[in-house]
Amino acid sequence: MAEWNPPNREYEFLFFEVFDAIESLEGLGFDDFDKDSLSLMIEGWGNHTKEVWLPINETGDREGLIFEGGEITMPPGFKDAYKRGMEEGWFSTSCKPEHGGMGAPLCFQSVTWSEYGTATCMALSVFPALSNGVYEVLSKHGSKDLVDYFARKLATGEWAGTMCLTEPHAGTDLGLISTKAEPRPDGSYQVSGTKMFITAGEHDMTENILHLVLAKVPGGPEGTKGISLFLVPKHLPSDWGSGPLAGSSHELNHQKNGVTCSGSEGKMGLHASPTCVMNFEQSVGWLVGPLHRGMPLMFEMMNRERLATGMMGLGLAEISYQNAAAWCRERRQGRDLRGARDPEEEADSILVHPDVRRMLLQAKVNIEGCRALASWTGILLDQMHSDDKEVSESASALVALLTPIVKAHFTDLGCETVDTCMQVMGGAGYCSEFGVEQFYRDVRISKIWEGTNGIQALDLAGRKITKDFGANLRHLMWPLIEFIEENRESKDMEEFNKPLYKGVRGLQQLTLMMVSEGMANPNFLAAGASDYCRYFGNVLLGYTWAKTAQVCLERRGDPFYDAKLSSARFFFDRIFPETISLAAKIQSGPKTLMEYPEAMI
Amino acid sequence: MAEWNPPNREYEFLFFEVFDAIESLEGLGFDDFDKDSLSLMIEGWGNHTKEVWLPINETGDREGLIFEGGEITMPPGFKDAYKRGMEEGWFSTSCKPEHGGMGAPLCFQSVTWSEYGTATCMALSVFPALSNGVYEVLSKHGSKDLVDYFARKLATGEWAGTMCLTEPHAGTDLGLISTKAEPRPDGSYQVSGTKMFITAGEHDMTENILHLVLAKVPGGPEGTKGISLFLVPKHLPSDWGSGPLAGSSHELNHQKNGVTCSGSEGKMGLHASPTCVMNFEQSVGWLVGPLHRGMPLMFEMMNRERLATGMMGLGLAEISYQNAAAWCRERRQGRDLRGARDPEEEADSILVHPDVRRMLLQAKVNIEGCRALASWTGILLDQMHSDDKEVSESASALVALLTPIVKAHFTDLGCETVDTCMQVMGGAGYCSEFGVEQFYRDVRISKIWEGTNGIQALDLAGRKITKDFGANLRHLMWPLIEFIEENRESKDMEEFNKPLYKGVRGLQQLTLMMVSEGMANPNFLAAGASDYCRYFGNVLLGYTWAKTAQVCLERRGDPFYDAKLSSARFFFDRIFPETISLAAKIQSGPKTLMEYPEAMI
Repeated sequence: MAEWNPPNREYEFLFFEVFDAIESLEGLGFDDFDKDSLSLMIEGWGNHTKEVWLPINETGDREGLIFEGGEITMPPGFKDAYKRGMEEGWFSTSCKPEHGGMGAPLCFQSVTWSEYGTATCMALSVFPALSNGVYEVLSKHGSKDLVDYFARKLATGEWAGTMCLTEPHAGTDLGLISTKAEPRPDGSYQVSGTKMFITAGEHDMTENILHLVLAKVPGGPEGTKGISLFLVPKHLPSDWGSGPLAGSSHELNHQKNGVTCSGSEGKMGLHASPTCVMNFEQSVGWLVGPLHRGMPLMFEMMNRERLATGMMGLGLAEISYQNAAAWCRERRQGRDLRGARDPEEEADSILVHPDVRRMLLQAKVNIEGCRALASWTGILLDQMHSDDKEVSESASALVALLTPIVKAHFTDLGCETVDTCMQVMGGAGYCSEFGVEQFYRDVRISKIWEGTNGIQALDLAGRKITKDFGANLRHLMWPLIEFIEENRESKDMEEFNKPLYKGVRGLQQLTLMMVSEGMANPNFLAAGASDYCRYFGNVLLGYTWAKTAQVCLERRGDPFYDAKLSSARFFFDRIFPETISLAAKIQSGPKTLMEYPEAMI
Repeated sequence: MAEWNPPNREYEFLFFEVFDAIESLEGLGFDDFDKDSLSLMIEGWGNHTKEVWLPINETGDREGLIFEGGEITMPPGFKDAYKRGMEEGWFSTSCKPEHGGMGAPLCFQSVTWSEYGTATCMALSVFPALSNGVYEVLSKHGSKDLVDYFARKLATGEWAGTMCLTEPHAGTDLGLISTKAEPRPDGSYQVSGTKMFITAGEHDMTENILHLVLAKVPGGPEGTKGISLFLVPKHLPSDWGSGPLAGSSHELNHQKNGVTCSGSEGKMGLHASPTCVMNFEQSVGWLVGPLHRGMPLMFEMMNRERLATGMMGLGLAEISYQNAAAWCRERRQGRDLRGARDPEEEADSILVHPDVRRMLLQAKVNIEGCRALASWTGILLDQMHSDDKEVSESASALVALLTPIVKAHFTDLGCETVDTCMQVMGGAGYCSEFGVEQFYRDVRISKIWEGTNGIQALDLAGRKITKDFGANLRHLMWPLIEFIEENRESKDMEEFNKPLYKGVRGLQQLTLMMVSEGMANPNFLAAGASDYCRYFGNVLLGYTWAKTAQVCLERRGDPFYDAKLSSARFFFDRIFPETISLAAKIQSGPKTLMEYPEAMI
């Protein structure tokens, strides 16, 4: 079985030494949370996932789920693990205390929770992650009636949630959906249509499943502007026939509400995660938020799931790295090129070989960098809810920018990192016995989920940087330039600050080019979007590495901080230079793409 | 089921229009082979693999093989497909007519045969590929006795072959092997030891399996210099007891020759390819070649298998591309950013989106470039056997250089390309129904097989470029510089010739740096090897693209040649620029790798 130890120390370093989480959360309503309580949560969740989640991960992959007669049976151990997590309150850390939640900061739930959960059992982690997302949308936008009836069940995890967007002919282009919702006299709706690729659409983990469904109410505007959001439960209350839900029992009528699952996709990985075709046949549902405003609401949840998907890249990279590093520490092959290191052994540790180190460090530094950027993003998520308008505006702008980058760049790097970890193990990496091959298959979906990485790049380049004349970008550039200026005189910081400065300058120039060329030809922007997103990701990682180095320079002599400085050097020497090529590709524009004779593709 | 059509036209273009195969093969003993017969072979093999191999590929993956009581049963359809290929002579195209082979050029067998075979059923293709490799070594280095008895059986495919190198504690470092071979009075040897990761070590496809086993004869030198090569059959002739094999019957004694299979690895992919733990217990074997000269002989076979493994990257990339392109041609989502292209449809073809084109063209151009470089390599393989010393010396030098690059760069690009093809299909790419996910799992082993890609890079940087003061490199640089000079005045060639020139200059400078810095510190060379290998691969692809462009410029106006020119432009605009970053990484040297505190890895 794959091994894993929670990287608690890394989070304590990032939250308390690099990004001053406690200070940043001040005045945001988390007065009960101090350094100690956050540390305790990190440690507790680390123990829980190691003890309860990790042991079922391999079984889940091997045995998979069973789809029979429209019902899905989860693999052995999943129901028990879910129940235990629910009982210990691990699924509701960020939900409101009035709904049975802990009211803890999002920086824990969105970052540490997600990393540990996806590292130890990605398939299981998706259940509470989806329920949390549905809870957020519902508790913010749902009518009092809906909130009163559903919110506590969702928060605690007793009932699960899903998001139903995709249809066979409408994936990226949701304007094409044909699911219909017709008003019923009692204020509810009758929802009919088919949705596909619905994660956790059907399962036996919870008694009820609450679907957030995108549908069109007849007579509304064309395209995405005519889409509304509905909450459609698998089962209705036993004592409800029509009218408001207020006062209805939480006992359920076990006849389905016209919601059936007609298939579960066979997939390369995530064998313990149901991917369902869902049919809604005149199912009763309730409108969430205003009519025809379904897309922005769904996007609130989507943005949250995008960050969670980004964290999957990180989580699976971390567990792969831990196993690859353990394997390398044991393995002896060949000799140190400068002379045998352990002449008494028949071969040296493979850690003497530069190429082995290159691979392991590439993995390690990618992980550390993403974790730092994630921690910053997590704190910003909390600051978005600040009463101080300046704080919330800036945090919102940064989160808007960071969301597509965390989703796309973390999952790209996640897949690359798991690949590198498999490679360093040679044949063992490809064999099921060692675990990494499961992570390789599982992590791959993260580049597709919640909008493919190409869509993230278009969101960044076509929307996030152009909106309000670049307002989002200003909120990033100010602190970045300030940081660079602040360190300009420091000799020790030069090796980090200088390449960062170059990267930021490059980003500014590329942004200007994208926006100005894009005005004349939108294909310029679209052709460069993916490379631009990766360039941007590198600059953000460069910033977090320089910031990390600044902290560690003051603590030199301690192996933990010295290693972080070495990681920062590795980043700027061996990862950051990819920005040079990315810039060249962006500059080449759309010509070679769009002039390619289509019939020959 | 995945679809595939043999890219015959591509090979006709490369062999007949770009690399002048027929002219290059003149005087090499292939007088029966002209343009028509080579075309017929390409077409025939394309039809055979499409009809016979492709249909069993998915079944093989889904049903896998059965290991029970030391025996392996192949998935349904495999034995029949193998038998048909054998009967039609497809497994012996490059074997000598006197052994029942066709005596056809290696450029067909090593390139076209390998691509089509791995594209349609990689698991099956490995059987004849291994048998061919064993045949080559045996027919070249085996005693008359061995050749007479075994060669025909191997050439026709009636009996299969394997290569037994790896042991649990000895993979990359074969000097550590502990398998022993003790001389028997009759001139044969008694071989004992355990080998692992033995592809096709046991199966029910053929009546006999011939293992080429690396073992040490007691009293020999330490390390790799004391390794010899033995042919150990699964079954001995029924009428043989000791002494020479000459005159022995091909009827077999079905009691095993002490050769047993004690396990078959569970793997991420290639479910229809046995990966065996093989035990030799006082098994009778015969020395092949001189005593203690096993490594160079095994490397002859290994080098051939390295090229074949490179072709796996290409084959699986091609079938993935064909399926992804077909999917994209059908799929409609969103609108052309410059205004709806098909306003009467509810959405435009996704081929209007620059990012979709970027992915498809990245795949297509990687494939086309590798296929061109492979075709050139194939012709050089034949020229190695020329009686003209100048021709054979130059061809041998080039093949020595090209082998690690074809192995490493083709499989790196192969994995990246299948990944890109999965990505462009979104969720469908991840679902088993569409086939690409199998290719994603299958192709991944190619980066590990026959020496990991890191080992290939070290072979290139540490051996192939330094040997005889850079003799190999001179054989490459001369024609390359000549080509560049020849085109310097052509305005039409400028867009291809100029970046190629820059790349070649860069390669020369990097090589000089690697060699000179490497003399003082071998870790410099080892730290940069992987990036150097990729840089080198790009320059070679740049050369084949410029050469291709030169040919196509003269045939403009025909869609086939125009598309090739567009591909060449895509290569230089969007792939080749990665060399800039690679150079920066190589230049950073080993410091950040070797100074990283080992305890913190």
